Amino acid sequence: MTSQNPVFIPGPTNMPEAVRLACHMPTMDHRSPAFADILHPCLDGVRRVLKSTEVEVFIFPSTGTGGWETAISNTLSPGDRVLVARNGMFSHRWIDMCQRHGLDVQIVETPWGHGIPVSTYEEILRADTGHAIKAVLATHNETATGVKSDIAGVRRAMEAAGHPALLMVDGVSSIGSMDFRFDEWGVDIAVTGSQKGFMLPAGLAILGFSPRAMAATKTAKLHRTFFDVADMAKGYANNAFPYTPPVGLMNGLKLACDMLLSEGLENVFARHHRMAEGVRRAVDAWDLKLCAASPDVWSDSVSAICTPAGFNATDVVTVAARDYDMAFGVGLGEVAGKVFRIGHLGMLTDAMMLSGLAVAEMAMVDLGLPIKLGSGVAAAQDYYRHGNTQQKAAAE
Amino acid sequence: MTSQNPVFIPGPTNMPEAVRLACHMPTMDHRSPAFADILHPCLDGVRRVLKSTEVEVFIFPSTGTGGWETAISNTLSPGDRVLVARNGMFSHRWIDMCQRHGLDVQIVETPWGHGIPVSTYEEILRADTGHAIKAVLATHNETATGVKSDIAGVRRAMEAAGHPALLMVDGVSSIGSMDFRFDEWGVDIAVTGSQKGFMLPAGLAILGFSPRAMAATKTAKLHRTFFDVADMAKGYANNAFPYTPPVGLMNGLKLACDMLLSEGLENVFARHHRMAEGVRRAVDAWDLKLCAASPDVWSDSVSAICTPAGFNATDVVTVAARDYDMAFGVGLGEVAGKVFRIGHLGMLTDAMMLSGLAVAEMAMVDLGLPIKLGSGVAAAQDYYRHGNTQQKAAAE
Amino acid sequence: MTSQNPVFIPGPTNMPEAVRLACHMPTMDHRSPAFADILHPCLDGVRRVLKSTEVEVFIFPSTGTGGWETAISNTLSPGDRVLVARNGMFSHRWIDMCQRHGLDVQIVETPWGHGIPVSTYEEILRADTGHAIKAVLATHNETATGVKSDIAGVRRAMEAAGHPALLMVDGVSSIGSMDFRFDEWGVDIAVTGSQKGFMLPAGLAILGFSPRAMAATKTAKLHRTFFDVADMAKGYANNAFPYTPPVGLMNGLKLACDMLLSEGLENVFARHHRMAEGVRRAVDAWDLKLCAASPDVWSDSVSAICTPAGFNATDVVTVAARDYDMAFGVGLGEVAGKVFRIGHLGMLTDAMMLSGLAVAEMAMVDLGLPIKLGSGVAAAQDYYRHGNTQQKAAAE
Amino acid sequence: MTSQNPVFIPGPTNMPEAVRLACHMPTMDHRSPAFADILHPCLDGVRRVLKSTEVEVFIFPSTGTGGWETAISNTLSPGDRVLVARNGMFSHRWIDMCQRHGLDVQIVETPWGHGIPVSTYEEILRADTGHAIKAVLATHNETATGVKSDIAGVRRAMEAAGHPALLMVDGVSSIGSMDFRFDEWGVDIAVTGSQKGFMLPAGLAILGFSPRAMAATKTAKLHRTFFDVADMAKGYANNAFPYTPPVGLMNGLKLACDMLLSEGLENVFARHHRMAEGVRRAVDAWDLKLCAASPDVWSDSVSAICTPAGFNATDVVTVAARDYDMAFGVGLGEVAGKVFRIGHLGMLTDAMMLSGLAVAEMAMVDLGLPIKLGSGVAAAQDYYRHGNTQQKAAAE
Repeated sequence: MTSQNPVFIPGPTNMPEAVRLACHMPTMDHRSPAFADILHPCLDGVRRVLKSTEVEVFIFPSTGTGGWETAISNTLSPGDRVLVARNGMFSHRWIDMCQRHGLDVQIVETPWGHGIPVSTYEEILRADTGHAIKAVLATHNETATGVKSDIAGVRRAMEAAGHPALLMVDGVSSIGSMDFRFDEWGVDIAVTGSQKGFMLPAGLAILGFSPRAMAATKTAKLHRTFFDVADMAKGYANNAFPYTPPVGLMNGLKLACDMLLSEGLENVFARHHRMAEGVRRAVDAWDLKLCAASPDVWSDSVSAICTPAGFNATDVVTVAARDYDMAFGVGLGEVAGKVFRIGHLGMLTDAMMLSGLAVAEMAMVDLGLPIKLGSGVAAAQDYYRHGNTQQKAAAE
Repeated sequence: MTSQNPVFIPGPTNMPEAVRLACHMPTMDHRSPAFADILHPCLDGVRRVLKSTEVEVFIFPSTGTGGWETAISNTLSPGDRVLVARNGMFSHRWIDMCQRHGLDVQIVETPWGHGIPVSTYEEILRADTGHAIKAVLATHNETATGVKSDIAGVRRAMEAAGHPALLMVDGVSSIGSMDFRFDEWGVDIAVTGSQKGFMLPAGLAILGFSPRAMAATKTAKLHRTFFDVADMAKGYANNAFPYTPPVGLMNGLKLACDMLLSEGLENVFARHHRMAEGVRRAVDAWDLKLCAASPDVWSDSVSAICTPAGFNATDVVTVAARDYDMAFGVGLGEVAGKVFRIGHLGMLTDAMMLSGLAVAEMAMVDLGLPIKLGSGVAAAQDYYRHGNTQQKAAAE
Repeated sequence: MTSQNPVFIPGPTNMPEAVRLACHMPTMDHRSPAFADILHPCLDGVRRVLKSTEVEVFIFPSTGTGGWETAISNTLSPGDRVLVARNGMFSHRWIDMCQRHGLDVQIVETPWGHGIPVSTYEEILRADTGHAIKAVLATHNETATGVKSDIAGVRRAMEAAGHPALLMVDGVSSIGSMDFRFDEWGVDIAVTGSQKGFMLPAGLAILGFSPRAMAATKTAKLHRTFFDVADMAKGYANNAFPYTPPVGLMNGLKLACDMLLSEGLENVFARHHRMAEGVRRAVDAWDLKLCAASPDVWSDSVSAICTPAGFNATDVVTVAARDYDMAFGVGLGEVAGKVFRIGHLGMLTDAMMLSGLAVAEMAMVDLGLPIKLGSGVAAAQDYYRHGNTQQKAAAE
Repeated sequence: MTSQNPVFIPGPTNMPEAVRLACHMPTMDHRSPAFADILHPCLDGVRRVLKSTEVEVFIFPSTGTGGWETAISNTLSPGDRVLVARNGMFSHRWIDMCQRHGLDVQIVETPWGHGIPVSTYEEILRADTGHAIKAVLATHNETATGVKSDIAGVRRAMEAAGHPALLMVDGVSSIGSMDFRFDEWGVDIAVTGSQKGFMLPAGLAILGFSPRAMAATKTAKLHRTFFDVADMAKGYANNAFPYTPPVGLMNGLKLACDMLLSEGLENVFARHHRMAEGVRRAVDAWDLKLCAASPDVWSDSVSAICTPAGFNATDVVTVAARDYDMAFGVGLGEVAGKVFRIGHLGMLTDAMMLSGLAVAEMAMVDLGLPIKLGSGVAAAQDYYRHGNTQQKAAAE
């Protein structure tokens, strides 16, 4: 029997029934006026989730990786220099993509578990008096390490250096679950996907372009057609796509935006913080450490948990899947075998989260780790209970 | 946001996705040959779940209550005497129905929390030398108290008394989740519904009639049309119903039977025992008691848990629903306010069950009960862990 | 490959996707407050569809047949006399039920294809000066013959005779698709099901009781428990059912009522008339006749079409199903083999209806009937086209 | 009320209920072993639909347009010459993409309505003695004009010229509905999408690469990351994707392949021919002409129908959508306003097709075209009827 346990991978996330059903559409003529009633609410909803008034939103039938490619190929030319920190597997992959597209990538190697070194960025940008750097890339939330970076800080560093580069942000595992301020932070391109904070199946790359980013598309020489935002913009103006749009997923996105916005973004973020904090209390009760080096970089969408030296963290994931039919995330790249990850973004409740912690405990005990059964659960229960009390007090 | 937490009411149960989708059929012509491919596998599947070779199965668009009415109205006449123990709300309701249908009901009052007093039945039946008693009614699993009765024992009592009455068994919350042996126990009529062990939405009364029960329909004088099994049997012979059948639910029932039988009934029962035993370990860790008076009557599909005197057990249900969006069952009738109930039948996993126990704990602590957070969860975790080990050992 | 052709049986009807999805609910605790938000809109929605301010609505997990049993068993006592016309298979079955429940049934035999003989009713009622007749039964729309009867006329006959009997109306294939005026016509009990005008799966009996009918329940002696409206009313007052309610179907009913009422009942009726009239134009083009004897009794929800003498009308249904995977209705009872039936109620469009007519034509031609291919389709096309023009003119 | 009429756009097509439900999956961990059970059957199923033993299949979360980009960017380098005929909007768009990616595109302008001029290809290839042409591009089925080209002929031309270029075929609107022989025709790259013959929602680019095409990826210099087939192949070898895979769509693809293969590809093609031929009979009865210049290029998946000079063909589409809620395709590019298109691929039945023809007739009559209502329908009915007879004869 399929188990119907919730998943605790850091995306795709658990989907609300209503969102999943919204995707489950019969065939609709995408050239009919009805498509406009899906397209424009999606564009507008994403814009509002990005907290922007000026952003131009683009939705591609693709994934976050396609979103990265859209970002660079529409605004940069071969040989252009980009500045980027490598502090996890996802920043690593974006770097690899830039290199393969003929960009000149200036990498700031950063210990995994740390955030983007803002002051290093500032030094480099100040030194780049010729403005050879055309874009600064930043991974807002490193899904591999559970590390949040300071995007506002990156923008401040750029401003301090008086540097005109574009600021491109990978918000794949933050947008829709953690605070993201496109306008306030001066983001030029934001990239995300459908299967994280938007609680949809994978299949959409979702981007926001600032006016400056749009301007850059005029001169960018990297090849692009499928991911061309100008074609896309022309399509949207006619309530259309340059090719067949993924209507069902977009219908789901329309609903997901409605749900996030009617819950209130700050409430959504608080809910994710609450889930995450319960997990962190459990990790503490287990006497384990997060991969994330310090509280200021703790992610509210995913926690990477270090297991003791000599222990293969991946075994926790294997045992949880095999014996309890529950999915956690393995460590990737540099932290493979050293961490396992608990995703806590998207549609989750106290009860679901506690079931994840209970299974993680059992798997660790099964593997001989000196964890007391129920200890992490109890720490999270205690936090969630008081959270309830506080919420009620706040509501009065 | 709707929570998608599992439910822990003793029915309707959590539905497997595949079963729910099997019910979600487009309109089909129920007079087409395709209906036969749904009808007969249902009848045969239920027969096998009942562990019977001879039973005649009937499916009505109704509920278990309609099943009770089908049982009595097809086999009894006004003024007929029936023998029945009252040991919970559901046996009470069946008694009420018998009285309203003009039957002469001989009630054996039994403390709630106890099973059917088999020896009292035997005494009464021995004393009924004139065989005025036409039917012995037995609730296999009292959903209100979490008490299982000894149906084989009831049959032995009847045999010991040499009594020819029909044996009618309410198996609503046992069939498909706890061992039920129609033929071996000499059951004449078994009654259940779709929303318990069959993991479907409510909407079907499901019955089995023995040849003796079928014979009794010839002379029974209670009025019936909608619930007439002879009309139904005539319909089935033509791959039809006497009225419009609930095709989607039956398509789901067909799949549910397939799932139960391919898992293996004994495995299904063991799985329910495992879920139940985890709950009982938690109850013990909480230092609480079950309503069920002794281990031999513990139900594997529902546990009714007594709270301390002076405490309103219903508050646990209220707080769990209001603050944690989780559904437990309240106490009914005599035990209202004295117990709350955890349903553990149907589609459940260790992880789901642990989430239920974790929430029950939080609710009880919120209400001031001297429960240690995580204690019940840990007891269940410990049991489920070793269960896994034993299962693996057994499989090797 | 399953064909996904529309069905043209006179129920169950084609379901709107949204209604079907509304039924496809995960398990919900039916004792939670959320159930009230389904229950009461259903009761209120049905009341409005019945065009009543006073009716008490009841919903049972059952079918229209169960609705008939609810009507009689809650208001009548064994030996009570009822007056009823037999003019088709469904009135016949209700008569049979009355007889089996010990009522004294005064049958007015009426040619199949004719409506209820209102003047005969009046004569009989006038002659019943002792008011032995306790209920007048009337089938509003005989699904077997496609004949609509004059319910307002039956009430006038009762008034003319000054007769106090209850007026019970089978509106199974009329309510929600043809005009039905509970209050204006002085109906005491209306009976319908979920799978016709409400466009849902089978599984609900839906009834309305007038205050007089409710009063009659106090003294009625026929046995009932499952179908007891007093138990049901008590349940509703507590946002509950006396047993497990069919929550998903009711959630669908809530939406179906919303859809019918927001379209506007008169528009719904006009839409059904439009569908029906297209079919009648086709029948005329085929040079065939309806079973319904005259235009005043033509049904807008189903047409029974007579085939020439010597031809087995059932073959049309068989060939359409076998060779074109399309479902029509066979003739039943007296008109078996003489008519085939096209259901045209529920969710249908011009295009769907035309596909049904096209297939009916092919099947008839395949069977050697002297029908010109395309002739019936063309007649319906012509009507639907002008209907469009008229609708547009009316809207301007 | 939403109409649930079938669509007659040439993709996305009507989806079988079972395929649509297969896509409607809850979240699954795409790194779990269960994903392998979806991935490999997809790859194998597509391979078999392509009638190939050697092809390497790739599936991207994208569309056919992304498939084109995958084809060229993985095998070609900037400045490479490609040969391609422009005979419709989709060949035009692929040409545009090639140009934007810096390829040297040798265009063979071909009248819209005609197929690829195989002999011209041969002349050009013979003349290219230096083998500057690296790829020959061919649109198997021009969706804009309903024109099928001779891919086997293109390969013969290449062989006659002894030319080593790669043969890349756009089979977006042919694969899965019209005969396509990857191996026999010597295709090097085949491109399609999910929303045509595979009867799925849009969202997948599906490609096949021959060993020669795979070899070409080693030296190709066009930039690619998202669409990189080497990354994809490496992922597949680990039962994974280089990024989050569209699991639900792939689960649908797995089922769609099963359905096509168990029906039998030749039967699938015959079914599409049957649908198409009915449409062509209707067009003939209307005294209209296809855009496709001659029977040898008639497409079995879409028909572009020319309306009389002075008449705006797009109006047919507009009226059908507005007044009858039915979707047809407009003319694109050179044939905009001159043709309207009826898609007849994917899940369709006689009945559905006839409903499309009936509505097209009504719309044309509404617009004043001298069409006789029912005439096209009758021609198609006549053809479908005899088709049935022939099928039955063949089956005996």
